[in-house]
Amino acid sequence: MLQSEFAFIDGLRARAARETRQNAELRHGIGDDAAVLRAAANCETLITVDLLVEDVDFKLEYTPPRWLGHKALAVSLSDIAAMGGRPRFSLLSLGIPRACGTGFWEEFFDGYFALAAEHGVTLIGGDTSSAPGGLAIDSIQLGECRQGAAVLRSGAKAGDEIYITGSIGASAAGLRLLLGGKRVRESEDDLTQQALRKHLRPEARVEFGWRIGEEQLAHAMIDVSDGLARDLAHICAESGVSAEIDASSVPISPEVSLVETDAEKAFELAVRGGEDFELLFTATGAKAKELVKIAGETGVVVTRIGEVIERSDSALRLRRDGKSIPFASRGFDHFAG
Amino acid sequence: MLQSEFAFIDGLRARAARETRQNAELRHGIGDDAAVLRAAANCETLITVDLLVEDVDFKLEYTPPRWLGHKALAVSLSDIAAMGGRPRFSLLSLGIPRACGTGFWEEFFDGYFALAAEHGVTLIGGDTSSAPGGLAIDSIQLGECRQGAAVLRSGAKAGDEIYITGSIGASAAGLRLLLGGKRVRESEDDLTQQALRKHLRPEARVEFGWRIGEEQLAHAMIDVSDGLARDLAHICAESGVSAEIDASSVPISPEVSLVETDAEKAFELAVRGGEDFELLFTATGAKAKELVKIAGETGVVVTRIGEVIERSDSALRLRRDGKSIPFASRGFDHFAG
Repeated sequence: MLQSEFAFIDGLRARAARETRQNAELRHGIGDDAAVLRAAANCETLITVDLLVEDVDFKLEYTPPRWLGHKALAVSLSDIAAMGGRPRFSLLSLGIPRACGTGFWEEFFDGYFALAAEHGVTLIGGDTSSAPGGLAIDSIQLGECRQGAAVLRSGAKAGDEIYITGSIGASAAGLRLLLGGKRVRESEDDLTQQALRKHLRPEARVEFGWRIGEEQLAHAMIDVSDGLARDLAHICAESGVSAEIDASSVPISPEVSLVETDAEKAFELAVRGGEDFELLFTATGAKAKELVKIAGETGVVVTRIGEVIERSDSALRLRRDGKSIPFASRGFDHFAG
Repeated sequence: MLQSEFAFIDGLRARAARETRQNAELRHGIGDDAAVLRAAANCETLITVDLLVEDVDFKLEYTPPRWLGHKALAVSLSDIAAMGGRPRFSLLSLGIPRACGTGFWEEFFDGYFALAAEHGVTLIGGDTSSAPGGLAIDSIQLGECRQGAAVLRSGAKAGDEIYITGSIGASAAGLRLLLGGKRVRESEDDLTQQALRKHLRPEARVEFGWRIGEEQLAHAMIDVSDGLARDLAHICAESGVSAEIDASSVPISPEVSLVETDAEKAFELAVRGGEDFELLFTATGAKAKELVKIAGETGVVVTRIGEVIERSDSALRLRRDGKSIPFASRGFDHFAG
């Protein structure tokens, strides 16, 4: 560990202390060999980790550091939400190239701590190393849920309705715009800028996911990171069921129209694009009224997009123009065009 | 996420399942958006993370993959031991360059899972990304200790004895030998090979640390990763005390003699070299008998190397030839020679 690394960590520790609220479950945060936590009574602990590597998962060339700090936390908050849990504590490992100086890290942590504060998340630890090969960010998130209340991928049942929050495709459209040369202009707010923002600074459905878990409304849930098709296939594989998507019901983000005018291609980009960080879940139709209530209270649009069906091949089907056809679960390779 | 990444994770998930023992505290491991844990009654959770970056923290050129897998886990086990805790669950984020193929990962996980099995540690999650800039390994470890029993860096008291397990300097000597061109030959077992092994495949004091915590024998503890001088300075800074090391008591590894024949230089390398992963702790002299008992039962040598003293400057002093002189807390920059 180099002297500059100690200074970096001391600065971060001081900032984390300023940003931290009193917390009965946190016994000891940054500054020892490990953090010490006490789980709340009757709660289970959730833990997830997301690795973001420069030039694979993001490019510094077009990413405002503040947005990268936001995204590093948001992607892990989304995983906790997808378990029906509530986020509590985070850790952050940073592989730091020379190109990222003090100014970069101040902005990065502005974005990180702003989102953390919004959701009552406390940074309790991490590690740093220099990284000549490029920036690497490993975002570790701890959450909690009531005992036995975690919403797994494996609970979907034949006859369940399939729901998704928000809309999909904007992030993939934003990425395509970035790869085509469009750049962030924070003073503007047109559809192009919204698409870039959806990709570079995604919002996780933190409160909605937690409420769904608390009130045990979903049988299975996942966040849409690999694309709707692939993530729904994960639920099917884990649950031993199949799914039929109703093509006309899928909520496609308006930003998709910026990059695909052909309806079929727009649909493909939306369902295979990924990084939407919407929540995809299955629930019995009898819970629809309660779902609508929570959606309203958390300001989230929820759309029914299909149905879980009894088929042992764990495959996807697409209902379109009154016909049901097989539907591939593959994702979209943005860099292959 | 690329298709090959799914295959990699599926293989790892299958292997982790084979290596996992029944565990009442693990509700759900690899394969969902997050792992789900239930803390044991009256226990606190410890969490630590260690980032290892290629060409900064290790070089593939001279590191057997099996030993790298071992080390990635060992460094985090050492942090849990330094809290007086017992390791339970691990997660692993891997930034994967093209150069590391299937054979590499099989060997890496041979080393990883062998050490995990030895200490009853279960791999419950992680993430992967490709990493064109070089291999990055982020090792996340969860442990547990009884409520209030975690041994912090901040508990040292004036009058405490200072103890260290094992001996120090072998890892730094091994690194210097590697940088000088020496290479691992697993069929040989001379002092040179032992030095390389201490650096490339360190052992954490898992059981000793946990027993010290269980029986509340230490006031403060840390593992020696930045070097004895710097790590003791961490304890002093956090505890608001100073420390005096008795130069003649410091247990210097025999491997140091391979790279330094001058006694003063050998001492400097040993106390500033780092990556020894021994445990450094302070305890009242009244507990010496119990310490000796645990040391015997866990097969660890423990040496008294000095005393915590009442001085507000949190500085180190060195007692040598009957005199007490100031002693710098800096570490050793191996690459500056």
